[in-house]
This record gives sequence, structure tokens and C-alpha cells, in this order.
Amino acid sequence: PNEAKEYENYFGLTLLDRRSDKRTDSKWLSKKQSHPTTVYIVFSNLSPLVTLSGGAESSQQPEVKLCRLYHKDVEQFMSQTEESTLIFLGVEVQFQMNRLAACNGRVLQEDEEDGLVAWFALSIDSASAEKCKQKHEDCYFLHPPMPALLQLPEKEAGVVAQARSVLAWHSRYRFCPTCGSATKIEEGGYKKTCLKEDCPSLQGVHNTSYPRVDPVVIMQVIHPDGNHCLLGRQKRFPSGMFTCLAGFVEPGETIEDAVRREVEEESGVKVGHVQYVSCQPWPMPSSLMIGCLAVAVSTEIKVDKNEIEDARWFTREQVVEVLIKGNQRSFFVPPSRAIAHQLIKHWIGMNANL
Amino acid sequence: PNEAKEYENYFGLTLLDRRSDKRTDSKWLSKKQSHPTTVYIVFSNLSPLVTLSGGAESSQQPEVKLCRLYHKDVEQFMSQTEESTLIFLGVEVQFQMNRLAACNGRVLQEDEEDGLVAWFALSIDSASAEKCKQKHEDCYFLHPPMPALLQLPEKEAGVVAQARSVLAWHSRYRFCPTCGSATKIEEGGYKKTCLKEDCPSLQGVHNTSYPRVDPVVIMQVIHPDGNHCLLGRQKRFPSGMFTCLAGFVEPGETIEDAVRREVEEESGVKVGHVQYVSCQPWPMPSSLMIGCLAVAVSTEIKVDKNEIEDARWFTREQVVEVLIKGNQRSFFVPPSRAIAHQLIKHWIGMNANL
Ligand SMILES: Nc1ncnc2c1ncn2[C@@H]1O[C@H](COP(=O)(O)O)[C@@H](O)[C@H]1O
Ligand SMILES: Nc1ncnc2c1ncn2[C@@H]1O[C@H](COP(=O)(O)O)[C@@H](O)[C@H]1O
Repeated sequence: PNEAKEYENYFGLTLLDRRSDKRTDSKWLSKKQSHPTTVYIVFSNLSPLVTLSGGAESSQQPEVKLCRLYHKDVEQFMSQTEESTLIFLGVEVQFQMNRLAACNGRVLQEDEEDGLVAWFALSIDSASAEKCKQKHEDCYFLHPPMPALLQLPEKEAGVVAQARSVLAWHSRYRFCPTCGSATKIEEGGYKKTCLKEDCPSLQGVHNTSYPRVDPVVIMQVIHPDGNHCLLGRQKRFPSGMFTCLAGFVEPGETIEDAVRREVEEESGVKVGHVQYVSCQPWPMPSSLMIGCLAVAVSTEIKVDKNEIEDARWFTREQVVEVLIKGNQRSFFVPPSRAIAHQLIKHWIGMNANL
Repeated sequence: PNEAKEYENYFGLTLLDRRSDKRTDSKWLSKKQSHPTTVYIVFSNLSPLVTLSGGAESSQQPEVKLCRLYHKDVEQFMSQTEESTLIFLGVEVQFQMNRLAACNGRVLQEDEEDGLVAWFALSIDSASAEKCKQKHEDCYFLHPPMPALLQLPEKEAGVVAQARSVLAWHSRYRFCPTCGSATKIEEGGYKKTCLKEDCPSLQGVHNTSYPRVDPVVIMQVIHPDGNHCLLGRQKRFPSGMFTCLAGFVEPGETIEDAVRREVEEESGVKVGHVQYVSCQPWPMPSSLMIGCLAVAVSTEIKVDKNEIEDARWFTREQVVEVLIKGNQRSFFVPPSRAIAHQLIKHWIGMNANL
């Protein structure tokens, strides 16, 4: 009982169990594709189809939610053109736990319905996207994806991150990077195989066949006095927005070294101790944002104008005002579902003296 | 003084400062290429040229070290064939700090020698590799790279990880994945640009132009009783070797979710709390190993035979015996420079009760 409880605490946080073992089970996949309980989320140009919910009736703010369509809704768009791509996302976690309890661990017969609710992402072309919008009047494609993606509920954001990253990979990696030939999609959308018989990419396992995940460090840099933090802004940001510094981890680099290098490159500030805090998948197109606290050992700022527009030390009071009281006269930070916001909040919640 | 000390504590850990700002300074790069103090490390088939040192004279074990060659040594191999690739690795950290002290912050004239010791990695073809070995009799190419790469001193291992990852990227990603055309190498080896004028990869910034870094989770799984840990082995491991479970982070996944998914997939064990410990770049070909402690919330093992051959709970005493006393009768773990070893040791050093 204790075990089950703990399990739920952790696994209740994800909507789907990826069930990567099913990616190679083409019989199961094709059965699930036309199963009436199977959920489809639809993308056009890497933007998900969404709807607003809970607006009119309740007194709450309307919330952006994914449209969950069914086989009957999307059948007409599937494999109609070459441009439609299908990705198996996983099965619903909640339902699976009920099922396990219900069938008491009995092994299912091969053809018996397993009760799993499968999810797929379907990317459709622009003509199909038009038809789809006409059929589902209350739905629209979330565009541009940023910052709108940050309005999705946390669980759905994870599913969109998964789907959007894999779809973006297919749209930019159509050809084999080893030999330049065409490729085919396999394993529920998670593998690309070169179609040229003697391509070296077919000998052994190579990352050319698998989706990219780009690790990025994002860091809340703390002044040696413990009472200021370093925030910066890029030219393309909305005016007044400041956030944590960030940058791609390079080959052969640790997370901690990447933090020190990026902070020094962008702001001239030298960082000593680095501590991991938490991370967030970021489907623009396929990053893993690794959030850290970084303690500065120098304070002079020299902004590299090629990388950022401005960087400044802000006092704890300034940040508290903006974050907690929502006072936006001076500057503002990204919304609460962005990892930068969480890192800044984490620091605010810490003791003043490190 | 305090500041400088702290700085050294952290930055003394890396041999090179990557100086990514110099990657676009082609004049500086070409001047450094032929400068007599510039260091070249040479690769053939992704294996670095190394030598043994400190063997005969001292009573210590001989240690594998990188061969540091100079322009005069490698001149004949450079750009002789299409197959040679040159990567700018950075400048020596130590020397740079002396220099800064010496010139007292004075801005250098454009053509003045800056005193920076640059490092390059040069990949040469097999014929050149033969010649190179003949010229440098005490040197050889470290092959196969594993487990020999783990014998390099830590600082050099970081440089090899950087060089090998970027070279492996060039060898597998010769063609533009967006359109299948040929590409050219730019920015000191850190960028690939499609040669087809109207390729969509040339509009905006895309990860197709930058080296891959694949995040991998590797975890020391701890039994709910705090006194056992879960180690597994793959078929291809040397017989008797057990190590931490590991797997690639998938698109749209957090580090913590990847740990839970991989442990459950491979061993059937369910994990609750996950804590980041440390990381290690792993140039096979280009991974970032993210090391975590993971606390199990279930204990029954069901090995997925497709992924691993065996997984078992080992007692703290068993692990201490193997790790500290080097008793290898029952089983053994990877060598001390592998992150798995460090994670296991970290757990041993922790209190028995979590
Ligand atoms: N980037 C990647 N590179 C190589 N293998 C990958 C990658 N992403 C996922 N995989 C999967 O991981 C397996 C290899 O894992 P391992 O045995 O741990 O090296 C492959 O057979 C693939 O199914
Ligand atoms: N995987 C990558 N994807 C995109 N940009 C990258 C990548 N790796 C390094 N970069 C560099 O990072 C810059 C973009 O950084 P940012 O402005 O933080 O998105 C690009 O101009 C590249 O120079």
C-alpha cells in the first residue's frame, strides 16, 4: 500500500507511459491506430490543435487545452498525402494502473483487448489542417508556439514536448546525414533508417537513426553577497523582460563547465560552485533545459553584445516585488511554467546567505 | 586574491578555455595554425595518438598520455587529402592567466602576438597515420578507444572527449539532413553549412548545423532498505562486470522521468525520488552521461533480456569489498575514471540510511 502510494506520487506526474517496447510491435500499433478509445493529437506546421476550456461557465480564466480527437475524426487525413507523419506517444498511465488491478496480473491472450488507451501524434498538411479546423469549430492551431506553449497544463506540455520534438526531427532530418540518401520512418516514429543498402549508418547502432535532444544549461547566477542575482535579456525578447542566462552544452563538456563558460562568455562574470536544481524539456525544437544555481566569484559585468543585449545584478527585493507582487513597472520575468521562473523562485525561497 | 584563488580552484580543473569567440576569427585561426607553440593532437579513425610516460624511471605504473605535436610535425598531413579535418579546441588556461597578469589588462594591438597557446585536433587518413607512427616511434593510436580512453589523465580525457565528439560528428554527418546536399565545415569545426543555396536549413538557426550531444542518464539505484544497490550487465560486457543501469534521455522527457523509465524498462524495478550527482562527457560518440542516485520503491527484478543480460541487488558489504578492497572473485565494476564507479563510490560514502 505504501509502495503503491509512493509510486503514484511520482508517476501521477506524467500523463503517458511511453511503452517503448510497443514501438516494434507493428501488429499492436496498427490495431491501436483504429481502436475507438485511441487518442489523437494533431499538429500542423509543428503547432498543436488546441481549444479553450472552463472559460464561460466558471469564473476562472479560460485555459488552453489539447484537442483530443479519435480515429473517426482523423481517418480522412491519415496517409492521404506523403506529408502526414504518425508518432506513437504511449499509453495513459492512469488507465493502465486500473487495468492491472482489474485483471489481477493474469496474462492476456494474444488477441485479447488489453484495455490500454494509446495516444498518437498526427502531423497533417495545410489543406487537411483547414478541413480539420472547419470540422472542429472551437479548435485552433496554437501559433506561434511560443509563448503560447507555456499556457498548456503541465502534463499536456510534456506530451506536446515529446510530440513536437519528434515531429521537428522528421521535418529537418529527412535525409541520411551519412550518405545523403532518402530514409524511412520506423518504430512508431522513433527511428529513421537509411534506404541505401550499403550505407555505413546501417552497420551497428548510430545516433543518426535517433531523434536529437540538445542539452542546454540555464542558470540563476547569484552574487557573492548572496543578495543579488544576474539576469539578462536578448534583443528579440519583449521589452522589459529579463531572465536567466542560458546556452547549449558543447561536446566534451560537463554541465558545470558549460554553466561557467556560458556565464563568462555572455556577461564576463566568473562562476565557481554550480548546483543542479531541476530540468524542463523545451520543444523549440528539441532541447532539454538543465536548470542550475551558480555562485559568482566575480561581479564586474562585461556584456557580449553578440549574444545578449543587457545583463544586470538585481536585488532580492526587486525580484521579490516582480515575482510575488507582480509589480511590472521596472522589469518582468518569464511566466510561471518556464523553468527560468522556477529557478528564480527557488532562489527567492532560499536563505539570504548561501 | 580570494577571488583569484576561488577561480583557480574551479577553472584549474580544465586544461583548455574553448574561446568560442575565436572560431569566427579566421585570421587569428590561420595565424595560430602555423604558430610554433600551437599544440596539435592527432586522430586516426577517431583514435587519438598517445604515448606511455613515467614508466621506466619512476616506480609508478606507466600512464597513457596524449602526444602533443607541433605545426612542423603535422604540416605534411594537413589539407593534403580531403579526409583531414581540423578542429580548434581552445587555448591553454594556465598560460592565459599568466598573460593577463603580465600585460596588466592593456589592450593588445591587432597584430601583436597575444601569447595564447592554441590547441587543434587533426584527423588524418590511414596512409598519413602510418607515416606519423614511423616518425614518432614511441607513439601509437589508442585502439580500440574503449576502455583505453579511461586510462587518460582526467584533464586530457576532457580534451579528447571534445575532439572525438566533434570529429565523430563530421564523419557521420557529411550531408545536410534537411535536403541531402553536401556541406562545408566552418567556425573552427563547430559548424556545418549546407551548400545548396535555397536549403531551408540556411534560413534561421537550426540544430542541423551544430554537433550533437546526446544526454544519457546513468543511475545508482538504491534498495528501499538503503543497504542494497541494483547493478546490471549487458551481454557484451567483460564477464563478471556489473555496473549502473543507463539509457538515452528521450525527446520531451525530464532527467528524472528518464531515470524512472529506464530502470523500470530494464529491470522492472520502480523508482521514486531521483537526485542528480555529477556528469561526465562520454565520446562514444558524443554522449553526456548524467549521473543520478535513484531510490527504488519496489524490489522485484524482471530483467528485459533485450536490453540487459542480468540485474541483481548487491549488498553494501559486497560492493565495499569489490570497490575498496579490490576483491574481484565475485564480480567487478568499471574503473575509477568511469562515472559509474564514482556513483557507486558516492553511495558507499553515504550514510546507510537515506
Ligand atoms: N542517440 C542515440 N544513439 C544511439 N542509440 C540510441 C539513441 N537514442 C536511443 N537509442 C537506443 O538505445 C539503444 C542503444 O543503447 P545502449 O545499448 O545503451 O547503447 C539503441 O539500440 C537505440 O534503440
Ligand atoms: N544545437 C544547437 N542548436 C542551435 N544553436 C546552437 C546549437 N548548438 C550551438 N548553437 C549556437 O547557439 C546559438 C543560438 O543560441 P540561442 O540564441 O541561445 O538559441 C546559435 O547561433 C549557435 O551558434
